[in-house]
Amino acid sequence: MKISIIGVGLIGGSIALKLKQKKTADFIYGIDNNTENLDEALTLNIINEKADLKTGIQNSDLVIIAIPVDSARKILPEVLDLISDQQTVMDVGSTKSGIVNAVKNHPKRSRFVAFHPMWGTENHGPKSAIAESFSGKAGVICNREESAEDALELVENIVKSLDMHLIYMNAEDHDIHTAYISHISHITSYALANTVLEKEKEEDTIFQLASSGFSSTVRLAKSHPEMWVPIFKQNKENVLDVLNEHISQLRKFKSALEKDNFEYLEELISNANKIRGILDK
Amino acid sequence: MKISIIGVGLIGGSIALKLKQKKTADFIYGIDNNTENLDEALTLNIINEKADLKTGIQNSDLVIIAIPVDSARKILPEVLDLISDQQTVMDVGSTKSGIVNAVKNHPKRSRFVAFHPMWGTENHGPKSAIAESFSGKAGVICNREESAEDALELVENIVKSLDMHLIYMNAEDHDIHTAYISHISHITSYALANTVLEKEKEEDTIFQLASSGFSSTVRLAKSHPEMWVPIFKQNKENVLDVLNEHISQLRKFKSALEKDNFEYLEELISNANKIRGILDK
Repeated sequence: MKISIIGVGLIGGSIALKLKQKKTADFIYGIDNNTENLDEALTLNIINEKADLKTGIQNSDLVIIAIPVDSARKILPEVLDLISDQQTVMDVGSTKSGIVNAVKNHPKRSRFVAFHPMWGTENHGPKSAIAESFSGKAGVICNREESAEDALELVENIVKSLDMHLIYMNAEDHDIHTAYISHISHITSYALANTVLEKEKEEDTIFQLASSGFSSTVRLAKSHPEMWVPIFKQNKENVLDVLNEHISQLRKFKSALEKDNFEYLEELISNANKIRGILDK
Repeated sequence: MKISIIGVGLIGGSIALKLKQKKTADFIYGIDNNTENLDEALTLNIINEKADLKTGIQNSDLVIIAIPVDSARKILPEVLDLISDQQTVMDVGSTKSGIVNAVKNHPKRSRFVAFHPMWGTENHGPKSAIAESFSGKAGVICNREESAEDALELVENIVKSLDMHLIYMNAEDHDIHTAYISHISHITSYALANTVLEKEKEEDTIFQLASSGFSSTVRLAKSHPEMWVPIFKQNKENVLDVLNEHISQLRKFKSALEKDNFEYLEELISNANKIRGILDK
């Protein structure tokens, strides 16, 4: 299969590596406005050839859109305009309502499959790409009933090639769930980093004292705004809803401490401990 | 050297394993009110012998107190009452002002060295102990001037045996720094777990969708209240100070989203990104 990947960064690059390894992809065209990334992806053998949008698409069975969600929503109708009924398009964005709504009435809507792999790191660019990234993680296909059967089947096979377990969901539910499973984690991590940077003016002390616990909690705060501002923008209502809940949960800790109510503090912590049973099934 | 370890859990057990491996310890007495932990530590060859407080201390050159910070503060004066001027006592607690104040005027104060290894995990008990835990992490000795020179030297050698890099600090500064380097991370993680548990009643969805980012941010929420309630209690003022700052940082994200001020959102995220340069030196 010939594949065009629009956006050869962390996610696009990791998909390319895995699909080449599995021989699902025979040839990969890389398309990217960032020529540095494109050159790097070629040097790293992530893609076989650099291409412009039109040439890449014309020669591909599958087009994978792996750019920030606002750009993805904008480019998808243009991509659909360029393809035939034998070609398939998928995206990998962290928000799904915006993109499915953008092509709701497009004559080629059925050639598009809305997809979200539940994996990412705080790094970016093709040099951060890892073939095994997706193994064992959830791959979510949204609004499957709006895609043609053959397009859906093709993407399902891609998801299997990535060694992910498939989940089907409608786009609205997806955006609610990802708001608290993924998006809020980034906000708390950013806010934690800003808290520490505000409180500690001696950077050396942060560096010297940083424990594994701190590094783990603050890891996501390294994630770039180019990717995350558009996600928060597109999923604004859900993110605000979870953020309000999160602030109110933090206030419970504050109140327990202020009132020396250590029984309540213990209760709050014991409740949080339940996450162990859920995550370590 | 013969060593008594009071509390053969995650930290006490990990220290025992490392000191035996490095042959710094010839013989380790385990002392613990939790007989199950004590038996397990013996079975796992973490300790050489189970002992009661008096017997263990009488036969040891060094006594390491590795129990929750409230119990440590309570037992330290009793331990100092039992030792001679040739013996040394150290603790490993995450808060330091409380414990140094508790023995400020004790006639044997100089035999005690206040210590905090900047390492921990969300797990507990001797079966979670790992010999290599401390390698490359910071080991903080507080109020060194209150310890006798030979006691200090002995503990410095222990810290070197653990392959940690030594930092000296006064207890008050230590408690301020750990409030935002370590303690606040736990509160945000607990509050994040409670947020998700509140919002998502279908546990299977959390489990299925959980990404590596979520797992990493929420990891510390598995930490037990037996250890953490006493830490928050002893470091209440500093933790509250940082928690207030953290809530106000989160409110900035809330405000940026509510007002569709995406430039401000980008600014907040770019500022948080600075943590990369500090942590990845």
